[in-house]
Amino acid sequence: MRLIDARTGIEHLTRDECLALLAADEIGRLAVADGSTPLIFPVNYVLDGETIVFRTDPGTKLDKGPRHRASFEIDAFDRDRRTGWSVVATGRLEEVTKFDSRAFAQVRSLGVHPWAGEKQHWMRLLPDRIGGRRVAQEMADG
Amino acid sequence: MRLIDARTGIEHLTRDECLALLAADEIGRLAVADGSTPLIFPVNYVLDGETIVFRTDPGTKLDKGPRHRASFEIDAFDRDRRTGWSVVATGRLEEVTKFDSRAFAQVRSLGVHPWAGEKQHWMRLLPDRIGGRRVAQEMADG
Repeated sequence: MRLIDARTGIEHLTRDECLALLAADEIGRLAVADGSTPLIFPVNYVLDGETIVFRTDPGTKLDKGPRHRASFEIDAFDRDRRTGWSVVATGRLEEVTKFDSRAFAQVRSLGVHPWAGEKQHWMRLLPDRIGGRRVAQEMADG
Repeated sequence: MRLIDARTGIEHLTRDECLALLAADEIGRLAVADGSTPLIFPVNYVLDGETIVFRTDPGTKLDKGPRHRASFEIDAFDRDRRTGWSVVATGRLEEVTKFDSRAFAQVRSLGVHPWAGEKQHWMRLLPDRIGGRRVAQEMADG
């Protein structure tokens, strides 16, 4: 069943739709808090079940991220048709290290290869909330 | 002068390049903090000088945003060539209301028309930091 807001034309995506979109893409945006300031970083990722796995070098994402909450977003926009969709996953961010040998082997098996080159650290976002929205074409044309 | 990291192939964009990219686009992503959790929202926007202006209905962006810091990101990715660029502006977020009549007239003159329909409130992000990165094709191919 489609759930569409009649006023805004915004369609709410199901959890399964969100997961399918996350599984099909390879780059998104991570938001982490640097104190009271949210920062945004594009990251290459792989979806593993419902977990978002990515790699990073030492820096802000790693320093601010572990044991903190974060959001991860993917989207696609059609500027000519004024339509688009977005999926946001929110949850706990943690580093996966060799000390958790099973998880470490798992994330390394996923084939996460950042466009900007191999990176030292493996991170994962464990979502407790996944949601998505689509601006429906019919309304956008109206 | 191009400033490119030889190891990662990441090119740092100049402030002028970032502003030109922001001026040319119309949709990006706003990160605001909901308590300790950063959230991400796609928003249609217009760049006014160095200020990012967008509209919103009552809700999280408005409730959590005013008098807080936020980041705004735009990007473009080429998944086949494994390249892309992103620009992030970070600063103070504020609502523009009719009580500031000059600013209110200014933001209303910009032609901000969200794809999901007209919205009640006007917001602006006043950046104190603007930065951008591009993953260089030569390195991405290497």
